[in-house]
Amino acid sequence: MFNFDYFTPTKVAFGKDTVNRVGDLVKEFGGKKVLIHYGGGSVIRSGLMDRVKANLEKADISYVMLGGAVPNPRLSLVYEGIELCKKEDIDFILAVGGGSAIDSAKAIGYGVANEGDVWDFYDYKRKAEGCLPIGVVLTLSATGSEMSDSSVITKEEGLVKRGYSSDFGRPKFAVMDPEYTKTLPEYQTASGCTDIMMHTMERYFTNGGNMELTDQIAEGLLRTVMMNAKILIAEPDNYEARAEVMWAGSLAHNGLTGCGSSGGDWMSHKLEHELGGLYDVTHGAGLAAIWGSWARYVYKNCLSRFKRFAIRVMDVEPAGTDEEIAIKGIEAMEAFYREIHMPTNLSELGVEPTEEELKQMAHKCAVGVGGQFGSAKVLKEEDMLAIFEMANKQEEKINESGRYSDI
Amino acid sequence: MFNFDYFTPTKVAFGKDTVNRVGDLVKEFGGKKVLIHYGGGSVIRSGLMDRVKANLEKADISYVMLGGAVPNPRLSLVYEGIELCKKEDIDFILAVGGGSAIDSAKAIGYGVANEGDVWDFYDYKRKAEGCLPIGVVLTLSATGSEMSDSSVITKEEGLVKRGYSSDFGRPKFAVMDPEYTKTLPEYQTASGCTDIMMHTMERYFTNGGNMELTDQIAEGLLRTVMMNAKILIAEPDNYEARAEVMWAGSLAHNGLTGCGSSGGDWMSHKLEHELGGLYDVTHGAGLAAIWGSWARYVYKNCLSRFKRFAIRVMDVEPAGTDEEIAIKGIEAMEAFYREIHMPTNLSELGVEPTEEELKQMAHKCAVGVGGQFGSAKVLKEEDMLAIFEMANKQEEKINESGRYSDI
Repeated sequence: MFNFDYFTPTKVAFGKDTVNRVGDLVKEFGGKKVLIHYGGGSVIRSGLMDRVKANLEKADISYVMLGGAVPNPRLSLVYEGIELCKKEDIDFILAVGGGSAIDSAKAIGYGVANEGDVWDFYDYKRKAEGCLPIGVVLTLSATGSEMSDSSVITKEEGLVKRGYSSDFGRPKFAVMDPEYTKTLPEYQTASGCTDIMMHTMERYFTNGGNMELTDQIAEGLLRTVMMNAKILIAEPDNYEARAEVMWAGSLAHNGLTGCGSSGGDWMSHKLEHELGGLYDVTHGAGLAAIWGSWARYVYKNCLSRFKRFAIRVMDVEPAGTDEEIAIKGIEAMEAFYREIHMPTNLSELGVEPTEEELKQMAHKCAVGVGGQFGSAKVLKEEDMLAIFEMANKQEEKINESGRYSDI
Repeated sequence: MFNFDYFTPTKVAFGKDTVNRVGDLVKEFGGKKVLIHYGGGSVIRSGLMDRVKANLEKADISYVMLGGAVPNPRLSLVYEGIELCKKEDIDFILAVGGGSAIDSAKAIGYGVANEGDVWDFYDYKRKAEGCLPIGVVLTLSATGSEMSDSSVITKEEGLVKRGYSSDFGRPKFAVMDPEYTKTLPEYQTASGCTDIMMHTMERYFTNGGNMELTDQIAEGLLRTVMMNAKILIAEPDNYEARAEVMWAGSLAHNGLTGCGSSGGDWMSHKLEHELGGLYDVTHGAGLAAIWGSWARYVYKNCLSRFKRFAIRVMDVEPAGTDEEIAIKGIEAMEAFYREIHMPTNLSELGVEPTEEELKQMAHKCAVGVGGQFGSAKVLKEEDMLAIFEMANKQEEKINESGRYSDI
């Protein structure tokens, strides 16, 4: 077991009508003039934005609006937000939406609180020494950004997608009402569930430094999300299932499911970041499309963890060799992805990279991680390319065995 | 599922040699002159206190010492600490020890930051509006006070034991090195494990408002503590097992295992508080001595939860009626308590109250909770008395069946 730090200061207000507390919460954390940052029109159409505004007004808090955050949020909008905050003397940023709005809000917060180019942080050149306080009204269960220290931004020039983590960026509060996730399209819901699970699975598949309590929590979280993701395919407006997934999204990425481990693997995320940067795919779906190939490539180097995962999470019978059990676990996870209509290869994800593009992505990924990365198995550029190639060819293999006939 | 708030701002530094960070942590949270509050000589004999002092000195932080915190910490020492803090212009309290030192430190913190008698808060007369910042160097895994909002103080006059909860009292940081728990006597270790489990079980046995994710986390935590409590009976210096129990102690009581529930039952704690106030027994052992009688008295009113507990935590075969399964779960928990040499009745706890004393405790308990309390089953004074009487007679019943021969 490794030493660890655990720091989750975000005050969570969870449940129905908690949006009515947003004004008091902004005030509690010292906000007087707020930038409301959001994405598209859904938060306006749902009536949520009107409730947020009314509640801020009731608490005598003034605000300025900045919409336009998109999935794989863009650096240009971050720059725009920084200028707006400086011009308007903003002292608090309220993100209303999902991971895109929150990540973008964090980047704006770093940009306002630190001199120089905010991209430096995402480019691993220097560390932030502060951040404007951030609050969140969450409308999408996925990235866990509402409690996490991380944000991911895409620089348009060269389509470079990079993450930056700092405790300064952890939101001061998160208002989480599952009601507002009920109208999400099935694809977004399933992508969110995949992202949530992957945040825990990235931490779970490590070599060294495991903790039984952390494992038990991680396994319980994965079982819970799988159970409720399936419910939501049939009943998208099931409040209890929406609530389970929403809370799991926060716990999956606030650090809890990695305590005592070596820090996790994270290569599936790194590989997906290249896909997301190049093709603008939905993050969770991109992860589902990559994970099976990654798992098959690395599992022999992390066999005891894959075996435990198969038995305790995927309910595989503990019979046969460890390798057989591990493979059954991977197959069961891919079957689950299919059940919630997630892709398990690049073709199903809707992208068809050429061999040259696969090589480009592998190269960018290797450069981005500093040459090599991973814990389940340390991967170099040639390994990354091999996994991209597997994910690109996976469909043929699966079609041959006929397992795909119902998709 | 009920709405909930979740707020755990405590920065945790977990693992070997983390005590070397205490000076920096005090500084990070603005401390310049510290009251070091501790209990007996064990933290001095172990060399821990010298390391704490050296580290504070290295960070140019001055300090004043106040020892003497005892299990079921006393109000008189709290008053003494408040006076000392005011006289010495203390701006930060560092508790070095277990729940006694931490709870006492919180009470001192309330007393310094608020006008009037600090007992008012514990007597439910008014609410604190602040608290001196608290830091913790933890040496005993049990109360979870290192991350919790609660503290329990005993007023000598009338031996009244009362708890007070406020987010203001949550420690700013907790330094947790499992090494320093290795030398704990077996009885203290097992009592700590019992207390940890009870913090989660109190939240688990409710009527209404449950959450699957919370249940899965609670069940995983209980299984982990049981597994490692048994290891520690055989190998008290097993670092990994000490670490599992230590981290479980924090998570069991920081709110995580109650998210979405009705708030929990808590009657076992309320009943034990009367025992602790009157007889000064070890809190965890007192809980073990009460729980089985409480469970047998209430389980029919909370049958689905007791059934789930039996199957998922105590590994009872799901065969027979729900009542049979529930009783097997209760028996299995009592068997576990015996395995780690905890009492399951008052006689084994080492107290022999008269009928009059049982009545006094039931009456004080009922008054303390405002007449009636509980969620698994709402208990009135006569129910409390009945449970005390069951716990007082339990030994005879168990002796008859011969199950106790090895104790």
